[in-house]
Amino acid sequence: MSDNEGITPVPVQESTFAQIDAAVNAALQAAEQWAASGGAQRSGLLRELASALEAGRERLVALADAESHLGAGRLSGELDRTAYQLRAFADAVDAGEPYAVIYDPAVAGAPPAGRPRLLRVAVPLGPVAMFAASNFPFAFSVLGGDTASALAAGCPVVVKAHPAHPGLSNAVFDLAVEAVRRCGAPPGVIGMVSGASREVGVHLVRHPDIAAVAFTGSHRGGVALQKEINARETPIPFFGELGSINPIVALPPALETQGEALATALAASIAQGCGQFCTSPGVLIVHRNATTDRFIRQLAEAMDAQNTHAMLTPAMRANFDEGVARLNLHPEARRLTAGEQTPDRHPVPNLVAIGTEAFLRHPELREEIFGPSCVVVTVDSTQALQQVLAAIGGSLTVTVWGADNEDADTAAVVRSAIRIAGRVLFAGVPTGVAVTRAQHHGGPWPASTQPQTTSVGLMAMHRFLRPVALQAPPGWLAARRGMPL
Amino acid sequence: MSDNEGITPVPVQESTFAQIDAAVNAALQAAEQWAASGGAQRSGLLRELASALEAGRERLVALADAESHLGAGRLSGELDRTAYQLRAFADAVDAGEPYAVIYDPAVAGAPPAGRPRLLRVAVPLGPVAMFAASNFPFAFSVLGGDTASALAAGCPVVVKAHPAHPGLSNAVFDLAVEAVRRCGAPPGVIGMVSGASREVGVHLVRHPDIAAVAFTGSHRGGVALQKEINARETPIPFFGELGSINPIVALPPALETQGEALATALAASIAQGCGQFCTSPGVLIVHRNATTDRFIRQLAEAMDAQNTHAMLTPAMRANFDEGVARLNLHPEARRLTAGEQTPDRHPVPNLVAIGTEAFLRHPELREEIFGPSCVVVTVDSTQALQQVLAAIGGSLTVTVWGADNEDADTAAVVRSAIRIAGRVLFAGVPTGVAVTRAQHHGGPWPASTQPQTTSVGLMAMHRFLRPVALQAPPGWLAARRGMPL
Repeated sequence: MSDNEGITPVPVQESTFAQIDAAVNAALQAAEQWAASGGAQRSGLLRELASALEAGRERLVALADAESHLGAGRLSGELDRTAYQLRAFADAVDAGEPYAVIYDPAVAGAPPAGRPRLLRVAVPLGPVAMFAASNFPFAFSVLGGDTASALAAGCPVVVKAHPAHPGLSNAVFDLAVEAVRRCGAPPGVIGMVSGASREVGVHLVRHPDIAAVAFTGSHRGGVALQKEINARETPIPFFGELGSINPIVALPPALETQGEALATALAASIAQGCGQFCTSPGVLIVHRNATTDRFIRQLAEAMDAQNTHAMLTPAMRANFDEGVARLNLHPEARRLTAGEQTPDRHPVPNLVAIGTEAFLRHPELREEIFGPSCVVVTVDSTQALQQVLAAIGGSLTVTVWGADNEDADTAAVVRSAIRIAGRVLFAGVPTGVAVTRAQHHGGPWPASTQPQTTSVGLMAMHRFLRPVALQAPPGWLAARRGMPL
Repeated sequence: MSDNEGITPVPVQESTFAQIDAAVNAALQAAEQWAASGGAQRSGLLRELASALEAGRERLVALADAESHLGAGRLSGELDRTAYQLRAFADAVDAGEPYAVIYDPAVAGAPPAGRPRLLRVAVPLGPVAMFAASNFPFAFSVLGGDTASALAAGCPVVVKAHPAHPGLSNAVFDLAVEAVRRCGAPPGVIGMVSGASREVGVHLVRHPDIAAVAFTGSHRGGVALQKEINARETPIPFFGELGSINPIVALPPALETQGEALATALAASIAQGCGQFCTSPGVLIVHRNATTDRFIRQLAEAMDAQNTHAMLTPAMRANFDEGVARLNLHPEARRLTAGEQTPDRHPVPNLVAIGTEAFLRHPELREEIFGPSCVVVTVDSTQALQQVLAAIGGSLTVTVWGADNEDADTAAVVRSAIRIAGRVLFAGVPTGVAVTRAQHHGGPWPASTQPQTTSVGLMAMHRFLRPVALQAPPGWLAARRGMPL
């Protein structure tokens, strides 16, 4: 429960179409100057934004906690991660990442071997519409990874604030506006619109001057936005991260040697942030045997012992209660945890067991339930395990515990995991996504709309850049290397 | 005219839905084995395909000429380019391009700085549907760049043969089947379907086991396919190259010093292959002055002196005649070339002059006319020139002659060119696209559907790969580096 009774709730402002048009227009006005900005200017702004977040920590964390119930500890850590991320992109910009070129010298003679000099540079796409998520009020919101990577790439950003944390969004945006002013960056480089209605987002993504859309949210919301974007006269890329059920495969060697520790770690991961993570583990796949039986009992007990907090919004709580009730009442499911969901208590972690056949036959058992819920599927063979993974399909993550020995069965499971996932873990839990160069956060559909791109990590920047080949460029242009004009 | 009277025309076979399903199913059966293939196996097949084309040169070029009228010299050169391209991808595979990894070692400590070990690898998407183009019967057809890059990436290919050259498609496919057999590659790694009806292509791109679509063709055809792909239950990427009018900007310094040579080169580029190139120059932008007047006269004379040949299909000829008649009869256009289009002669190069205002006011004057046609737009200022480029919009190429001196006006023009193009040339003509690492063939919409990707050059391979981050991989898996399982 939060200590923030002193904070007055802020109503969600519905931006008018004129306000949205003005924000996009300001972004468009800023686009040329920001595209032409050098590394020092871009990294300067990114670092200034990181410092501004840190300087405002106390007030921002209190605001975030009052609106999200995620707890001051977690939110302060998330603020750290967000500042770290802004600085990581600043470092990448300083190292020349958005200005990197490929150079092919001319080769004398006739084609196909003979060729002119070619210098491949990258140019920013233009104004990016960025949809903030509810569940990471710092890291996937106003100054989160999408904003940081777009700014690093040289693109202005128009944020669509999430209506679950309007007060925090306003506060962070105000800090951003001040940072932009202090850095002398063009004022339209970060804009914000808000609204709880569908119309605000639709008007934004249909605006002809928006060049790309980044989104983190629900499957339903993402599909609806994609449909609007498909109806545009000029197509633009839609980078949507739509969540998944993130299977955990616990192979026998792992359970035999470290079952108890894994049960504890998994229970904590399922309950973390009240299960409100895109990477929250929603299904556990185990082979049928006595070790497994013990592990599942340990897991259920550890889940019963978890403390949770209020969910982000009452609507999410209602969805969770409905999803869990559907699972628990399913004729082929057997509940393993003891706790009951009651309106006067925070959500209680929920675990049910389902057989392979039932899981394969009932697609509704594979749907994401946003909150602390997990399904255990028991399999009798590697082949059945592979079928279960294939039925789950596109996932942000798959975790495979106990894959230390290279044998045919393990390789087959890993192959099945790679086929459906953007990230495959062999230790630890999927919640928590490191911000680094090798990170990839985006799996095959329906986990994300563009599985070849990532929304976390340094490669996220490349979503907002487009290559241009300069053929036989004059000396003054070639001398700029990848620096924009 | 061709020397191929001995060649019997081959009718276009309409693949049945069962045949299409069988081809996709064979590709799916081959997918796992081909994805797991090492560099030697992939490059071995690519080199075998190149050699097979060369060994069959005499017969293939005769077949291609009989069906396309493009001439034996050009077609033999195109076969060379196609073999060169297959070997260039083989070299890239041997150098490890599809197996390249990004590695981030673990960092001790708490997040965000602390992190697990991450190895980012790339995995093939799966079966690719590849739509052959009419205008490059070798280089953008059965064994063209899309097929070569997909095979290099580890993806099987189902070719949709172009109905304009069915005999050649069958002959090349037969050689490919033999090469696949000789190499011991899985039989389904290259499949082919054919048909002149819309239904064949639609059934192919809607097949649930097709993972990506590559297409080179008309705007209308591309838009129709995109619509079908958008209606799939599972979205897949559509890499469509839809052509453009490829503006040439001739700045005064170029015309003053080398006007006559440029007029000759441009006339040849406009008439080359009877204007049937995606990169054929369809609009020339010049400043109004006496030097320009002389240049345009020289260009018109050089165009009148060009020899052409029959177009690829009677339908294309009809479209060309209609487009040219619309231009020539336009009340604000003035015809500069002398030749008339008559049914008993090959197409005659056509040049018309249009003022800036009229060009900006009439979108129909900016539409691509596939064939030897060009429009001259005369401008009075750099700003007007920029407006003309902006009105043209997304283009595969923009050529800027006379940009050797860095001054504000030149920089402004180059900036406008970069904004709308995938490739900006500063010398030479846009027809002819070098196959190299720095190449980028794909401009902003409507030139291509995914402007961040290229259909020519080594980076084309990355359209068919998807990153996967392996977190804390076990030793045996990490030791494979990027080698697929």
